[in-house]
Amino acid sequence: MTPRITNAQRPLTTEVEAINERGENVPTPIAGEHPLTLYIDKCEIVTLMTLGQAPEALALGYLRNQRLVRTVDEIAEVQVDWDTNAVAITTRQGLNNLDEKMQKRTVTTGCGQGTVFGDLMAEIDAIQLRNDVSLSETTLYALLDAVRRHETIYKSAGAVHGCALADGDGEILMFVEDVGRHNAVDAIAGKMWLDHIDGSDKIFYTTGRLTSEMVIKAAQMQIPFLVSRSGLTQMGHDIAVKTDITMIGRAVNKHYLLFSGKQRFLKS
Amino acid sequence: MTPRITNAQRPLTTEVEAINERGENVPTPIAGEHPLTLYIDKCEIVTLMTLGQAPEALALGYLRNQRLVRTVDEIAEVQVDWDTNAVAITTRQGLNNLDEKMQKRTVTTGCGQGTVFGDLMAEIDAIQLRNDVSLSETTLYALLDAVRRHETIYKSAGAVHGCALADGDGEILMFVEDVGRHNAVDAIAGKMWLDHIDGSDKIFYTTGRLTSEMVIKAAQMQIPFLVSRSGLTQMGHDIAVKTDITMIGRAVNKHYLLFSGKQRFLKS
Repeated sequence: MTPRITNAQRPLTTEVEAINERGENVPTPIAGEHPLTLYIDKCEIVTLMTLGQAPEALALGYLRNQRLVRTVDEIAEVQVDWDTNAVAITTRQGLNNLDEKMQKRTVTTGCGQGTVFGDLMAEIDAIQLRNDVSLSETTLYALLDAVRRHETIYKSAGAVHGCALADGDGEILMFVEDVGRHNAVDAIAGKMWLDHIDGSDKIFYTTGRLTSEMVIKAAQMQIPFLVSRSGLTQMGHDIAVKTDITMIGRAVNKHYLLFSGKQRFLKS
Repeated sequence: MTPRITNAQRPLTTEVEAINERGENVPTPIAGEHPLTLYIDKCEIVTLMTLGQAPEALALGYLRNQRLVRTVDEIAEVQVDWDTNAVAITTRQGLNNLDEKMQKRTVTTGCGQGTVFGDLMAEIDAIQLRNDVSLSETTLYALLDAVRRHETIYKSAGAVHGCALADGDGEILMFVEDVGRHNAVDAIAGKMWLDHIDGSDKIFYTTGRLTSEMVIKAAQMQIPFLVSRSGLTQMGHDIAVKTDITMIGRAVNKHYLLFSGKQRFLKS
């Protein structure tokens, strides 16, 4: 029941000329950024600005994280067409409550694309993450090292955020970058659906900040471990405590700060 | 005709406990993040997640940058109430085409930052920035130094983006931080309205990346100089070239890259 999808990645960087402080012409690689308009069964939903690394997964993950679609089995096709900057998603049975879901919108923090349809906050209380899994400091360091060695658009062009999903050994299963933090996490969510990957024993890594919707999205994917290179906000922290997710910030090299879900973390 | 406004700043940081890699308890300051729902004449518009440093200016600037209101003179009051996480904006005459504008947003994109993207792109061609102003390298360095010395939430808690408006001597006129890049630029736009500041000879500085909407917003405020500590994206670059804004990226200490509008930049 995996949907039929295109594989329409865009060139991820392009080069422009700049002049630096020494007056030299510097060919500078910059990250791509393209509008991509989502249609479900020909109904226009949203236009996302994206790097275009994984547009099909992004579209699927957007629908997943916005709770517009409940399972990947509902989706028959995801067809990206860059000539029209559009992705056409076809459901198997149609979505009968789409209008209602699109009523309530929240512009979330940092809004690379941040609309949230419906009241996600209300769902938080229902989230129960696994407590029979653990993350050791050794595994955390292995993941941070794997991220450091990963070839990235960020290294060449900057201006993007990266997200990774790792297994219990800290090995990277997927890595997506995008011009918005939300797009990167949504693309991971979409890839997880496409590859039928269960999040309940995985580690989610992001280069971005741990704001409210970052934590909500990880918890909704049932992922018990959330690791960021960056800091966090008050609501990100509140929601982490509420969902009891194991949240680690400022994780670089052999440094980190453990904020919540401490029972799952094993100091080696 | 300046609107009556509250002055309802939130505490900007709070402290939580974390455990670091040495097993020590570390009191860690984190940035605030609060939902703020905007109502115009009692009609609900959007919920923004904000640090709460300048909520009135944020609300005004959001309306300005989303083109929901054309001049500050249309606004009678901006009242923030953190008990209900709401900001009530009262217009002098009512907005008679609000439904139409909101309808178009929902239909065209529906995303916070991408909300009026279609409309904005159409306006780009009409933008004409002043060409009788210049920015010298000395002034740029003075601005970068002023930014470096500025006391910031970022320094204490991270997880925020900062924006500054500076005058022709590189002196900071206003500095706003927020958990989202868009909020920070919107708050600057709102403050400019409140203080009746003309952007046409000013410098806009942001810690955030130069993505499409960042460049669009600066150009719409008639600001000819856009400076960022970070990198840029392809569409940000395209729009900078199109509007011929003087755009400088990777500006830190005595380094920078000049990308567009080079005729306004004076190598000292």
